[in-house]
Amino acid sequence: MRSETQKVPPLNKTTMGISEGMPLIASEGGIEELRSDIQRLMDMEAIKQTKHAYFRCIDTANWDELSAICHPELQVHYAGGGYEYKMKSREEFLAAMRQAFHSEAIARHNGHMPEIQILSETQATGIWYLYDHFWSLNAHHLTHGTALYWDSYTKVDGRWLIRETSYRRIYQINETLDEKQDVAAHYLRDHGMVL
Amino acid sequence: MRSETQKVPPLNKTTMGISEGMPLIASEGGIEELRSDIQRLMDMEAIKQTKHAYFRCIDTANWDELSAICHPELQVHYAGGGYEYKMKSREEFLAAMRQAFHSEAIARHNGHMPEIQILSETQATGIWYLYDHFWSLNAHHLTHGTALYWDSYTKVDGRWLIRETSYRRIYQINETLDEKQDVAAHYLRDHGMVL
Amino acid sequence: MRSETQKVPPLNKTTMGISEGMPLIASEGGIEELRSDIQRLMDMEAIKQTKHAYFRCIDTANWDELSAICHPELQVHYAGGGYEYKMKSREEFLAAMRQAFHSEAIARHNGHMPEIQILSETQATGIWYLYDHFWSLNAHHLTHGTALYWDSYTKVDGRWLIRETSYRRIYQINETLDEKQDVAAHYLRDHGMVL
Repeated sequence: MRSETQKVPPLNKTTMGISEGMPLIASEGGIEELRSDIQRLMDMEAIKQTKHAYFRCIDTANWDELSAICHPELQVHYAGGGYEYKMKSREEFLAAMRQAFHSEAIARHNGHMPEIQILSETQATGIWYLYDHFWSLNAHHLTHGTALYWDSYTKVDGRWLIRETSYRRIYQINETLDEKQDVAAHYLRDHGMVL
Repeated sequence: MRSETQKVPPLNKTTMGISEGMPLIASEGGIEELRSDIQRLMDMEAIKQTKHAYFRCIDTANWDELSAICHPELQVHYAGGGYEYKMKSREEFLAAMRQAFHSEAIARHNGHMPEIQILSETQATGIWYLYDHFWSLNAHHLTHGTALYWDSYTKVDGRWLIRETSYRRIYQINETLDEKQDVAAHYLRDHGMVL
Repeated sequence: MRSETQKVPPLNKTTMGISEGMPLIASEGGIEELRSDIQRLMDMEAIKQTKHAYFRCIDTANWDELSAICHPELQVHYAGGGYEYKMKSREEFLAAMRQAFHSEAIARHNGHMPEIQILSETQATGIWYLYDHFWSLNAHHLTHGTALYWDSYTKVDGRWLIRETSYRRIYQINETLDEKQDVAAHYLRDHGMVL
């Protein structure tokens, strides 16, 4: 067993810095208050679509659309088993993604079960539960696992952007592939950076 | 490496024919405009529930309920590794599903991360990210992978129906099963078409 | 083939006891009716977040937060291949969860594709499609599969709680692990009950 000092720190709303957002209670006011309630619901939907596009774009190497949903000052902190990525800008992040999602990679990243908190008209947070697979065919390697994301979003010129994104693994399993995979379809082979 | 001409075409909003829907901005008008905003949010929820039921129904061979959420003139175009299905009506599609989800099949189809666009009071589109497994126990075969769906929906008599549905694979891996699977529960064995 | 009497009973809205909730149609009334429509949409979002937290909490052994989203008189009925759990209170359920999510377990439970029905201001139901993996490292055992959940929720003091939750498997596959898994990250090792 690990000693106390090596323990993985707990992953909960307190350690992730997630505070309660505006309550899911319809306003008691008049038409202006209801309009603001409706906007809050629309904002939650828009934020979900932004993060959904994030996962779709990384797995299809769609860097133009990914760029459009990330804030220029994007802060990234992803911590897994044997790796830790800290990035300080959208450009640094995009450059790393282009390298990672190459023509020998098969990537599946699904973000599940969002818990979005609206903090104001332009600020929000979200917890997501990642489940992913990542094959590096040239390295005969597969990594799969889950992680919790905690993000912050900001609305700029009417569009919600990812401002900060962090994750830590719940589990990660690494596998060495003994046999060649029978890959019958492989989008990144044609659209990822050619190795 | 593949030659340029064999390349898989890109999968993005342009190639999928997905245009931006009505914006997620609360109306500036009065009570009628807010009512229409609320209806738009309800329509997005209803469309998600329709597609959620679609996946639940195929994996449980629930053809009556599946039929009720598909438009009679349903157009289907599913393209995977080594197969391509084009179907021109709900009846043709249902007949194919009955064949595919048989008593020797184990099926998992999860549609994730919807990006719904409302085009009008009765027209909408959606992008979904499929992650699926499909075992053919009698053929000792497993296929798993992901795909992007792009759908159109239409509202008929107050209910949202799937009008057109297409997917293309992001990846697909085929496996031959050397050993018998220890299947401890298997719904389709009792409810799929008996082979 | 199984005899008729051994057949798994069908899993559909009728057998799950799911009736249609309040329709996703904006009210024809005035400001009070629209307020109630908005509240209904907020309730659907709140219920989803409750169930999302449920899955996040079990996989991270977060018993305090799990307790806060379960009704004291929680009724549980989970039926899988080779097991059936019936529990009659939140405390009984929490005690069982503490045992199950131990330091030799790796757990992934993702609840997908919700179909929420609002029955009244304080009563609702939900269908969810579970996809899960559960490793018992000490027993060299892995179980994976899917299930349909059907739940009821009740609103108490402004918060939606899980009142009843049931699932039955669509499929379940058991595997004996011949080799040691290369577990590069493992949250429950440090936060699950020490075996």
